[in-house]
Amino acid sequence: MSLIVVGSVAYDGVETPHGKVDRMLGGAATYISLAAAYFTPVKLVGIVGEDFDSEDVELLASRQIDLEGLERVPGKTFFWAGVYSADMNDRTTLRTDLNVFADFNPVLPESYRPAPYLLLGNIQPALQRSVKAQMPGLKLAGGDTMNYWIRDYRGELLETIAEWDFLLINDSEAGQLSGERNLRRAAAKILEMGPRILVIKRGEYGAVLFHGGCHFMAPGYLLEEVFDPTGAGDCFAGGFIGYLAGQGIAPADGRVDLAELRRAVIYGSVMGSFCCEKFGVDRFRTLTREEIDARFREFQSCTAF
Amino acid sequence: MSLIVVGSVAYDGVETPHGKVDRMLGGAATYISLAAAYFTPVKLVGIVGEDFDSEDVELLASRQIDLEGLERVPGKTFFWAGVYSADMNDRTTLRTDLNVFADFNPVLPESYRPAPYLLLGNIQPALQRSVKAQMPGLKLAGGDTMNYWIRDYRGELLETIAEWDFLLINDSEAGQLSGERNLRRAAAKILEMGPRILVIKRGEYGAVLFHGGCHFMAPGYLLEEVFDPTGAGDCFAGGFIGYLAGQGIAPADGRVDLAELRRAVIYGSVMGSFCCEKFGVDRFRTLTREEIDARFREFQSCTAF
Repeated sequence: MSLIVVGSVAYDGVETPHGKVDRMLGGAATYISLAAAYFTPVKLVGIVGEDFDSEDVELLASRQIDLEGLERVPGKTFFWAGVYSADMNDRTTLRTDLNVFADFNPVLPESYRPAPYLLLGNIQPALQRSVKAQMPGLKLAGGDTMNYWIRDYRGELLETIAEWDFLLINDSEAGQLSGERNLRRAAAKILEMGPRILVIKRGEYGAVLFHGGCHFMAPGYLLEEVFDPTGAGDCFAGGFIGYLAGQGIAPADGRVDLAELRRAVIYGSVMGSFCCEKFGVDRFRTLTREEIDARFREFQSCTAF
Repeated sequence: MSLIVVGSVAYDGVETPHGKVDRMLGGAATYISLAAAYFTPVKLVGIVGEDFDSEDVELLASRQIDLEGLERVPGKTFFWAGVYSADMNDRTTLRTDLNVFADFNPVLPESYRPAPYLLLGNIQPALQRSVKAQMPGLKLAGGDTMNYWIRDYRGELLETIAEWDFLLINDSEAGQLSGERNLRRAAAKILEMGPRILVIKRGEYGAVLFHGGCHFMAPGYLLEEVFDPTGAGDCFAGGFIGYLAGQGIAPADGRVDLAELRRAVIYGSVMGSFCCEKFGVDRFRTLTREEIDARFREFQSCTAF
């Protein structure tokens, strides 16, 4: 069933130990949409400038991603540049030019509003909230956030996530949001803030799902080579919500089927791992659903005991 | 079946964010033996001074650990002191007094030599090798090492591990030993050095087993409170080899049953997690096999998908 994805569509400049690309398609909504589109129909909401390349439009359109909600306005597309540390576990932002993204105020096309699934990429919490308010028929809604909103927009953020079914967040952000260093205690505090489903991402070490008094630990896929981790967390989110939307999963009595949620976390890990195999979105130019399912099975065979 | 455990028996001074203990029972062989003794009969090889407390002897003896190989000589027992960082992922050594351990030259009692299982704690590689040479009936032998031996005794270490069935090592040591930062490539290089079974420990993030062209990823148990991580890696080793010895596992055509190895890794994680719940060896004063098996099942329920 249809999934609305809201967030940045950008150009990125990225340097990793494996190379350097001055300008390539990026942005959270781009990665989320590309990953989710393997599982379910995606409708993207974002904003780009006049410089947005037709070949990038074509890539998204080739994945049947609905672009009616991708606004094109005078000015330049959001640009971000960063450089990764030698082990790629840290990155330094070199440049952030918000450009047209500074005035992003998402208004959903009429055709988007009845969609049952919503993934809010990391944008200003009040904007995330306004998008959700435009969708009366939601079955499952949630999203991502980041350290900046947790620190400087805490009140707005708490009001926003209180209405979410699920929150995806990385481990350092979970610590910041909860004030707890310990992952289990952090999770318990965050679940009291509203979301009934919490996924704490731990980068190369995998992710932990918390729901209904249980938790599920998924290790990270062991890649032989990480070329570029940019977008991996967003692809995790795309795989996670894409799988749930594709299966038509909805909560009953506040609970979501645990077995399906666990599979969604593994599909998230799978999509995040593929993302790292090439620079930017390049892996998604050739990736097939068969490869995704093969890696899902590989996860099973590498974790069962 | 009988397991020989060789390594340090010590007193530790430890400070963590949860408290400080000036002097408590420690040492790799102590932790390994206490953990392994839940699964199989253990015979300890070590050395202590005249200051070694009778109540510490009694604790070990109460777990049916054979102490014929625990030599007591004039002088003081090995003493180590360290302080942990706030997140307990790093520690600083404050003091290392080798004392009687400086002259440790393990000679196995006759009654120990026919034992089929051997776990060599982190000691000088040539000593590890000499112990193995005293045991003609080994089914499965291996051990641990550390950065110091990898850096300064590389030749000796390579000769030693070339004869081992398994090597247990943490991720940074695996990188140092192999010269590869990537875990899979590091593992491939280390497996070429001799051991057919490799377990790379990743602290709170779990462990990865490599054997026979496959790997198995075990997440770390999520504790609500880590009091003191001292000895956790050794308890992992004790749970791992203790389980295999208890089951009587032996290689056939160079391969060890993968399902049993996976269970051994999970028992290792279980024992490492219990170790962190109290200071030093305190958790083992009350821990029961029933609690261990319950946590093993909890691991299954938190990882299956």
